[in-house]
Amino acid sequence: MTPEQEVREKGALAKQAAAELAHASTALKNEALLAMADALCERQEYILEANREDVQQARENKVSEPLIDRLMLNEDRIRSMAGGLRQVADLPDPVGEIVQGWRRPNGLEIRQVRVPIGVIGLIYESRPNVTVDAAGLCVKAGNAVILRGGSDAINSNRALTNVIATAAEGVGLPKGTIQLIQSTDRAAARALMRANEYLDLLIPRGGAGLIQAVIQNATVPVVETGVGNCHVFVDASADLKMAEAIVLNAKTQRPGVCNAMETLLVHQEIAAEFLPAVGARLQQAGVELRGCPRTHELLPEAKPATEADWDEEYLALILAVKVVDSLEEAIAHINRHGTKHSEAIITRDLNHARTFTKEVDAAAVYVNVSTRFTDGFEFGLGAEIGISTQKLHARGPMGLRELTTYKYIIYGEGQIRT
Amino acid sequence: MTPEQEVREKGALAKQAAAELAHASTALKNEALLAMADALCERQEYILEANREDVQQARENKVSEPLIDRLMLNEDRIRSMAGGLRQVADLPDPVGEIVQGWRRPNGLEIRQVRVPIGVIGLIYESRPNVTVDAAGLCVKAGNAVILRGGSDAINSNRALTNVIATAAEGVGLPKGTIQLIQSTDRAAARALMRANEYLDLLIPRGGAGLIQAVIQNATVPVVETGVGNCHVFVDASADLKMAEAIVLNAKTQRPGVCNAMETLLVHQEIAAEFLPAVGARLQQAGVELRGCPRTHELLPEAKPATEADWDEEYLALILAVKVVDSLEEAIAHINRHGTKHSEAIITRDLNHARTFTKEVDAAAVYVNVSTRFTDGFEFGLGAEIGISTQKLHARGPMGLRELTTYKYIIYGEGQIRT
Repeated sequence: MTPEQEVREKGALAKQAAAELAHASTALKNEALLAMADALCERQEYILEANREDVQQARENKVSEPLIDRLMLNEDRIRSMAGGLRQVADLPDPVGEIVQGWRRPNGLEIRQVRVPIGVIGLIYESRPNVTVDAAGLCVKAGNAVILRGGSDAINSNRALTNVIATAAEGVGLPKGTIQLIQSTDRAAARALMRANEYLDLLIPRGGAGLIQAVIQNATVPVVETGVGNCHVFVDASADLKMAEAIVLNAKTQRPGVCNAMETLLVHQEIAAEFLPAVGARLQQAGVELRGCPRTHELLPEAKPATEADWDEEYLALILAVKVVDSLEEAIAHINRHGTKHSEAIITRDLNHARTFTKEVDAAAVYVNVSTRFTDGFEFGLGAEIGISTQKLHARGPMGLRELTTYKYIIYGEGQIRT
Repeated sequence: MTPEQEVREKGALAKQAAAELAHASTALKNEALLAMADALCERQEYILEANREDVQQARENKVSEPLIDRLMLNEDRIRSMAGGLRQVADLPDPVGEIVQGWRRPNGLEIRQVRVPIGVIGLIYESRPNVTVDAAGLCVKAGNAVILRGGSDAINSNRALTNVIATAAEGVGLPKGTIQLIQSTDRAAARALMRANEYLDLLIPRGGAGLIQAVIQNATVPVVETGVGNCHVFVDASADLKMAEAIVLNAKTQRPGVCNAMETLLVHQEIAAEFLPAVGARLQQAGVELRGCPRTHELLPEAKPATEADWDEEYLALILAVKVVDSLEEAIAHINRHGTKHSEAIITRDLNHARTFTKEVDAAAVYVNVSTRFTDGFEFGLGAEIGISTQKLHARGPMGLRELTTYKYIIYGEGQIRT
């Protein structure tokens, strides 16, 4: 079977499954999620053995230890995936909600009703837990899902999908609800990107390279996720203790994630007081600083930043630092270099807080909060399938509701147009 | 200037305008809409003269009379465009609405606030009124718009855009709020489809060919609009008088639009009673019938339908007719051949109504109503920029609200993640 054939066959099966899933009861979907969780724990040995193959292969390919750590499964991680599925079972079902409804003067009764999207494709890299998390969210929102993970995790993903798909079908969800593209050929990913006949939505999750490849090549509707060149702006009126704690948190608590800070902007009025103090603490935490000329004067140990640094998503213990003359300069810098993900101002000035939240164009704009909170769990959505950085359909963390759409249902008694 | 340069320059200017427009007051936007309306009336002679050039050119190119009629402007049509702008000024401004908001256990105050999308591109054909309608809706929702009309209407579109853009800037909206791509080269349309740096959304409006070209070539987010292979299913329990009136209306009231019926499905139990009666009336109205074998037995004057007829959007006085055995067969036929636009059942059976609305996958599903109501005005949205047939972002008629997105604004007092 060619990769294209595999995508066509699985696409057709998913479309059939989606038609049935769209009116599956909440009780049945929850039963499936719990059965999937139980099956993960019961078939742990089978999953770990498959994962060991991937890890061994990665070692032979001289993959770096942090990447091997992302790939590796153990009892704890499997238990945590199962726990995630049980949490999703506990979340309210978004399907069937009447979003709004009204009656027209001619008597038409219009209801806008929340329904599943249909068939969702997911192209992702590395961490095998995405396989289970994404499948759980898609099932709860009534969608069929076609997964395409990275080739380095193919054995783990096969085992995981096999276990959860079998469990879901075992309680009565249709065949084709959860499917993995087995081919690791790039042609399979390309076929998925152009499977307009079958896919209603494709979500890429991974590095900037993967996301760009999907945007450039896809003809199916895409939600762009995750690239985060996030800024913290410390205003002249900031509580500097608070600013220091937030800057440290946003940069160092987990530097490899999309909502970590990549550039620090500091108002010139407080730069001489703030930068040496925060700079010392950042360096203690192992952060490499790259500064503009004014930063360099105050922090001689900072390397000079180049223009490219303002656009870089380091995902590492590196921080670009710039002293700005004003709130306006900070906003202009963010709107020019940001990726519309998460942006924060630290200020005590009401007008500045209002201007910043109004004029900064990003999915999440924070006042006196670390950027690290842009996350489905932290927002209270229960879970997320990714963080959208585009403006269409959904912005920021995408939970269950963002995995649905709506249809209009209209009742009448013979109305015609004149 | 090359077409690519024109798109880049106008894209950059639109992006700048959008940043300012995003926080323009409702009063200013309404003032602009009224000024645009006034200017259309005042500069009527200038617009009509430009339009006469297009019409003359079309006549020289032997364009058909119906198409020339779509292209032609007159005093009435200009007055109607101006009236449309005044109506949009009267509609509520969707920007600034707090869609939802909540407080997290850690004290974060999260608000989801409605904001403009940013820069919207529109690629469309023929009718010059789209230029004015689309510009008005985009301005009211706080978006900058880049218009790319058909080459046959280029002089009319230039005059119209010139008049309304000047009026909008005259009251203080930023330069670049409303722009027309002057180049009629296809390269300009292609550049617009790939202008990810500038465009947040591209909407194609026109025939199936135009829409497919955009879907196949665009890398910017697209909302697919308009293709409607709509069905009416007359169930066994239907009120046949009502069914007849709805079928006549859905097919003949305005056959050239996307929400007109293209295929009639009739339950076998009532086919012998219903088809001869409705067939006669349809033929009186000049409708050519193409039927399945069972239809042909009851309506010998119907031509035989081929498989291709079930997928055809005629946009003309032609109707495909099929007798089906059951509700289930009707739903399966619609989900296989429909374009997810508008679908109707005529029935007195509660269960059938519920099953049809649940299982038919379309933007608008009707019970005992003509499909012709899928329209922004008829839904009470005030106006529409198009009818979405995809599932991402918006489904069905897209009014002002569907031309917006949201951002999260989060206030705290120093929260960090642990």
